[in-house]
Amino acid sequence: MAEASPQRTDVNELGEFGLIEHLTKQRPETTQHASTIKSIGDDAAVIDQGDALTVVSTDMLVEGIHFDLMYTPLKHLGYKSVVVNLSDIYAMNAQPEQITVSIAISNRFSVEALEELYDGIYTACRYYGVDLVGGDMTSSPRGMVISVTAIGKGTREKLTYRNTAKVGDLLCVTGNLGAAYLGLQILEREKQLYLSNPGIQPDLEDQDFLVGRQLKPEARRDMIELFAKNQLVPTAMIDISDGLASEIFHLCQQSGTGAFVEESGVPIHPDAELMALKFQLDPITCALSGGEDYELLFTIDPADVDKVKYLPDIYIMGEMTRPEDGIKLHTKGGNIHPIKAQGWRHFGGGA
Amino acid sequence: MAEASPQRTDVNELGEFGLIEHLTKQRPETTQHASTIKSIGDDAAVIDQGDALTVVSTDMLVEGIHFDLMYTPLKHLGYKSVVVNLSDIYAMNAQPEQITVSIAISNRFSVEALEELYDGIYTACRYYGVDLVGGDMTSSPRGMVISVTAIGKGTREKLTYRNTAKVGDLLCVTGNLGAAYLGLQILEREKQLYLSNPGIQPDLEDQDFLVGRQLKPEARRDMIELFAKNQLVPTAMIDISDGLASEIFHLCQQSGTGAFVEESGVPIHPDAELMALKFQLDPITCALSGGEDYELLFTIDPADVDKVKYLPDIYIMGEMTRPEDGIKLHTKGGNIHPIKAQGWRHFGGGA
Repeated sequence: MAEASPQRTDVNELGEFGLIEHLTKQRPETTQHASTIKSIGDDAAVIDQGDALTVVSTDMLVEGIHFDLMYTPLKHLGYKSVVVNLSDIYAMNAQPEQITVSIAISNRFSVEALEELYDGIYTACRYYGVDLVGGDMTSSPRGMVISVTAIGKGTREKLTYRNTAKVGDLLCVTGNLGAAYLGLQILEREKQLYLSNPGIQPDLEDQDFLVGRQLKPEARRDMIELFAKNQLVPTAMIDISDGLASEIFHLCQQSGTGAFVEESGVPIHPDAELMALKFQLDPITCALSGGEDYELLFTIDPADVDKVKYLPDIYIMGEMTRPEDGIKLHTKGGNIHPIKAQGWRHFGGGA
Repeated sequence: MAEASPQRTDVNELGEFGLIEHLTKQRPETTQHASTIKSIGDDAAVIDQGDALTVVSTDMLVEGIHFDLMYTPLKHLGYKSVVVNLSDIYAMNAQPEQITVSIAISNRFSVEALEELYDGIYTACRYYGVDLVGGDMTSSPRGMVISVTAIGKGTREKLTYRNTAKVGDLLCVTGNLGAAYLGLQILEREKQLYLSNPGIQPDLEDQDFLVGRQLKPEARRDMIELFAKNQLVPTAMIDISDGLASEIFHLCQQSGTGAFVEESGVPIHPDAELMALKFQLDPITCALSGGEDYELLFTIDPADVDKVKYLPDIYIMGEMTRPEDGIKLHTKGGNIHPIKAQGWRHFGGGA
């Protein structure tokens, strides 16, 4: 009864970010409330509530796209679905306080399975000090969808956006990159082996670190606290969910800058380095395009360099440059390559 | 690789509300923040932000469960997905100001289809005066899932919960009930006819009112404004999404009361009455169990009766009674029947 549109543009032509931009830009009515301080285009929206600023972030995880229940324990899935949202709030230099969780499930899931999922959700709530305050629970014709919204509090002085990096700012990153992607490669390899021969046992090669980074990531609350302790307010910040290259691209695009990154400054864990080579992958490519590390990428005023230099788990890996200089990687071999934003393409499969 | 749970309880055994209660109750750590004023169990969560109270509500709409794209225009779907959330905020006697929208879609949807969906979303934003401030866009292996979170503002004096009705309070309802359900019956009938004979044209019998109530419902912002104008603060309130019976049940269960409802006081539109008879359905059953009317069900102090008596589109249909009296319907025929909470069972189908 419903008619097909005369024109048909495939969503793949635009990709996730292009699609959101296409659908939400050029809407003059977008902001009707003075309380809407920051809308679409950052890690989270910011709402002025008088005394405090409310920061809101939301993410949707879809079975078969973002997680595979063949190797993802439901408790870890619940935990991760909270963490990826909290990571967005921390990336605003704000503190998450509440979450809502909506879940669609087919009736192939039992109450016991949901209990495991909620165990993970509540474990994350306890660990990060947030309250689960609401949500929705509904059935789905097939598969599981989890949508989490995180609500946090921030102050005008501390909130950190994506579009406020300046030319000359130092580009920093927390932790290490690429490990979550390599953990996923191990899990996918074992899944394929298992599918072709269900008799064999998975061999995760004692790669607890890499597999753990994929299945049970953490958000960098500790870094936000470290910033506060050292009176450091980054000039811009974003969390690394889609891969370093993609996030650098967002920072540069929104701030109107370029970036110059030293390959030697990109932190990669030794386990990730070794596993990349085992998979015949370039470690730096895993770090640039892997995604799901949930580390923080941020810029600081060069005058603040002493506040960062001796902090643990923070790495200065480059500098923000003029926009016409583009986004460049200075390789260990001495070459200079443009960095392309790849990230994960979420519109690959399905029908 | 993942092992099955030793015990398996079907989600149908608990139903939506039982399931949420089961999964979220008896978690001592539920509330860690003093700012969490109201958690799971009402139309929306309430967060103390200093000057104002922030009200947060979220709903998930799943293709094949909540909507059928065979007869739901995408623009209407976008509109409705916003309205059902705003309705929850109004049911708190609060004003929605922002929404986030997360969408999972398979690549069977084109960019043009998504534009239609967003047209509906933005039309609702404009009409109700809310800002779309964020969200997520991802792919899904099949079908569409829409998750909307609405954020509103309320005051301590006016916010209206579900658990604060008192014995002796008058039970009131806005608008009319059962029409959305009958609109759905018409659409479903025409869909079946079309499926068995794709050559025929759907005959909606000029039932614009009934079909419109299903496809393009409105939230009762006007009623919240009317309350304010008349200095009326209901003692308890809930919106009617799952059917009158189910919502009365929630009010009574949470407030610790019973209810006595006059069938003659339940407002049913003449078109709904006639169509119910045509479908050989009892009109009062459609009103009690149909759902999706998005009207407001509320209780008032009997001392406030004069504030309500002459207001348009508000009907006094009963009274809150002692809990031991149960929830009863006084039929037009003079009989007294217990009302059973039915609502829609969302865990019916699928695999």
